[in-house]
Parts: sequence; structure tokens; C-alpha cells
Amino acid sequence: MSKAIRIIGIDPGLRNTGWGIVDSLGNSLRFVASGVVHSDAKLDLASRLCQLHDGLEEIIHAHQPFEAAVENTFVNVNPTSTLKLGQARGIAMLVPARAGLRVSEYAPNAVKKSVIGVGHGDKKQIHMMVKVLMPRAEFKTDDAADALAIAICHAHNRTAQTHKLAAI
Amino acid sequence: MSKAIRIIGIDPGLRNTGWGIVDSLGNSLRFVASGVVHSDAKLDLASRLCQLHDGLEEIIHAHQPFEAAVENTFVNVNPTSTLKLGQARGIAMLVPARAGLRVSEYAPNAVKKSVIGVGHGDKKQIHMMVKVLMPRAEFKTDDAADALAIAICHAHNRTAQTHKLAAI
Repeated sequence: MSKAIRIIGIDPGLRNTGWGIVDSLGNSLRFVASGVVHSDAKLDLASRLCQLHDGLEEIIHAHQPFEAAVENTFVNVNPTSTLKLGQARGIAMLVPARAGLRVSEYAPNAVKKSVIGVGHGDKKQIHMMVKVLMPRAEFKTDDAADALAIAICHAHNRTAQTHKLAAI
Repeated sequence: MSKAIRIIGIDPGLRNTGWGIVDSLGNSLRFVASGVVHSDAKLDLASRLCQLHDGLEEIIHAHQPFEAAVENTFVNVNPTSTLKLGQARGIAMLVPARAGLRVSEYAPNAVKKSVIGVGHGDKKQIHMMVKVLMPRAEFKTDDAADALAIAICHAHNRTAQTHKLAAI
């Protein structure tokens, strides 16, 4: 019997970076933990990026996930917002990669398709389906729920991806 | 007599991150080193961010700068490019901050104004003025020259900024 794979899903944001950890074994999913890493908007940007770095590093150290998944999204409001998100996202990808985890990226519609069955839908639907798929899942914020959805998406897609990588 | 302050200027980019180090003592500037950290476009994003991280960490360890300056720019071509730049920029700010350096940000026109006297001008003018201000400066690429210009900008502005910070 194969071993459960522990996955961390990360929903990056400069102010709030959501994270969710699940164990995936075959077709079954088990909720492990979820939460949000905050950065203090009163601090300068470099210090805020350090806060995100240290928070994520602590979570990875505490829960020892084996693979990571990060949403590949941008806020198309203005370049300043996109740049901010990019900076947070850089940290969200760096920390697991430096800890030796393989980091996969998923587009928002791939996450939605994996969790609610179609490539569109609102946050409420996603959160409801996270609860349906993992009744014991606990999340206090939208960011944590989104991060769990990203982890679930990776659990559903990782086997195909691993085969693809192995074939390279 | 006060001690020279060693400054690292960083011009972030996912493929090429330029860096330039100068010593600033009163009104005089001394070139220390410059170069570019590359990431391999064939690798996945997380591995590329690790390459930028490790490269910058090595340079800071080797040259021991005291303060860092990073250009605050975005490519307004499309959100994807801005997101990519943001990711590289996140790493460019994180590495010096984690090493204990104060990290300042400068808008491109502030860098131009500081180096060529006006807020507009092309790359050639900037490179020429870097050579005028520091005749011994060596740079093989545009990214390294830009990074030196950012370091010079910080050398010219850091005193005012330090006073401002001290007043908070």
C-alpha cells in the first residue's frame, strides 16, 4: 500500500497568504491544518516579505509537507497590485522550493474545475466543496479555504503530472 | 572621519538580475564590483527563484554590503510580465533584508535624476554617467550598469532618508 502524500497549498498575497495542508492517499483526502500568514502593512516592503518568508518556513517545518502547489493568478486591476502580488508569490514559491519540495502551479480555473467540477464558480461554492470533500476541514478565512482548494487540486492532478515529469 | 558605507544596488529580473556594489564616503563614490545573476529559463519557476536567491545570497556574503537599494519598476506590457518581474523583485528584496540590510526602493525616474540630473534619459546616458561618476566602474551588461546606477542613487539619497527614518 502506498504512503499518503502530504501537500501544502498556498494562496499568495502580500497582506494575507493563505495556506492549507492535506494528506492525499489514493482517492482519499484528509485535512491536516490551515491558516493565514499575515504581513504588517505598517512595515516596509522588505520586512513584510521577511514576515511571509518566516511564517511559511515555520509552517513547512512544523507540518513537513512533501509537495507544494501555488495558484498562478494575477489581479488585473493595475500593474502596482500585480507587482505586489508577484512579490508575495515569489516568496510563496521560494520557501517550499528551498525546503526541497516540488512546487506546482495551477491556474484559478484549474483549481475551480478540480474542486467544483467546472472552471467557473464563486468563493462560496469552492468553500462548500472543500467541506464536502473533507468534512473535517477547518478554515477561518477565505484565504485559508482557497489554499485548501489549491492543495486538493494538486492531489487530483499530481499523478498525471508526476508521470509527465518522469517521461521528460 | 566617518566610515565608507557599502551599498548594493539591485536591478531585478527573472532571467537576469543585475547587481552593483559601491562604497560611499561623503561625496565620493568607489566602484567595488558588478555583475548579473542568471536563472535558467528551462527550469521551473520555483527553481529559477532559488537560483536568484542563492546567487544574491552569495554576492552579499562575499562583499558584505551594509545597505541595499532596489528599483521600483514594472513592465507595463502585460500582467504576466509584471507578475514575473514581481516574483524576481520579491527575491531581490528578501535576500538583503534577511541578511540584515536595510532595503530602500527607488522609482526609475529618481534613479535617472540622481545619475544624469533629470528624470528622463536613455540607458546610454545612464551608463555614460556611471562611468563619469566612477571612472573605474566595470560592467559587462546593461543590467549591471543599471544596478550600479541604483546604488549611486541610494548613495545620493541615503542621508536624507536616514534622517527621515530617524524622525519617525
